[in-house]
Amino acid sequence: MTTNYGIVLVTAGSQTEAEAIAFALVEAKLAACVSLSPIRSIYTWSDEVCSDEEWQLTIKTDLTQFEALEAKIRQLHSYEVPEIIALPIVAGSLPYLQWIGQTVNSHSLN
Amino acid sequence: MTTNYGIVLVTAGSQTEAEAIAFALVEAKLAACVSLSPIRSIYTWSDEVCSDEEWQLTIKTDLTQFEALEAKIRQLHSYEVPEIIALPIVAGSLPYLQWIGQTVNSHSLN
Amino acid sequence: MTTNYGIVLVTAGSQTEAEAIAFALVEAKLAACVSLSPIRSIYTWSDEVCSDEEWQLTIKTDLTQFEALEAKIRQLHSYEVPEIIALPIVAGSLPYLQWIGQTVNSHSLN
Repeated sequence: MTTNYGIVLVTAGSQTEAEAIAFALVEAKLAACVSLSPIRSIYTWSDEVCSDEEWQLTIKTDLTQFEALEAKIRQLHSYEVPEIIALPIVAGSLPYLQWIGQTVNSHSLN
Repeated sequence: MTTNYGIVLVTAGSQTEAEAIAFALVEAKLAACVSLSPIRSIYTWSDEVCSDEEWQLTIKTDLTQFEALEAKIRQLHSYEVPEIIALPIVAGSLPYLQWIGQTVNSHSLN
Repeated sequence: MTTNYGIVLVTAGSQTEAEAIAFALVEAKLAACVSLSPIRSIYTWSDEVCSDEEWQLTIKTDLTQFEALEAKIRQLHSYEVPEIIALPIVAGSLPYLQWIGQTVNSHSLN
């Protein structure tokens, strides 16, 4: 089972930044839907273990648009190396997948 | 690496609806476990950008049961086109995967 | 599209346990980043439907280290059968993927 669709995970440093990126991606039709939720992130940076409040963006999109999506996120994001990782949708409700396709692919016609 | 198992993502319009769907799927043994968390969703609908409070369901299941799972969700869900998307589990702790298999596959014997 | 990288999902029974496991995985360089968020889990156990508050760990790592990661989690976790499931990252921002690789693979040199 496989589809062209996927979810892309991005973290942002604040709710304001997360919402700004989410609205920009949806308005640019690079994402059909973006869900936001608060998280705490624990990670290594310059060999130090850090713990920060962040916001998780879960972006539902067509992965054939991944390069354009990544470029837009890196243009908007305040981090030097933002998390931008894609997981594959291997099955889905047909009307929902068609909705993602119609929404996001109309981007490539702009 | 690959398995028959996966997680299925669904969003619902309220905590009440999310819990009702989650309990129904677990009781019907179509899901071994469903986790729930509040999210904000930003999306396009009829060419308008919308922003709503929703609840995310993360359903741990056997993807060979996806059609039965989808049918049950669409029967219960208030949305016309609910998000129902499956991501593949490619590796996992054997006892946990066996637990998913024993729990969900006993559904197909009912 | 495919990479060696992935996200590993684990649930824990409390914030304290979730943070302890997250810090241990990052300090051991078995994970580049772990995000934490509160969830409610509905599941079957000994044929009873249960509903508990839990914490979701979303671990960003190199899946070639999955066995070492699983062993460490099972050593630390209070559950007999903890959720430890891996989803594949099929595409990602190159600097971010390189950061995961540099962080986690330095584990295998220890």
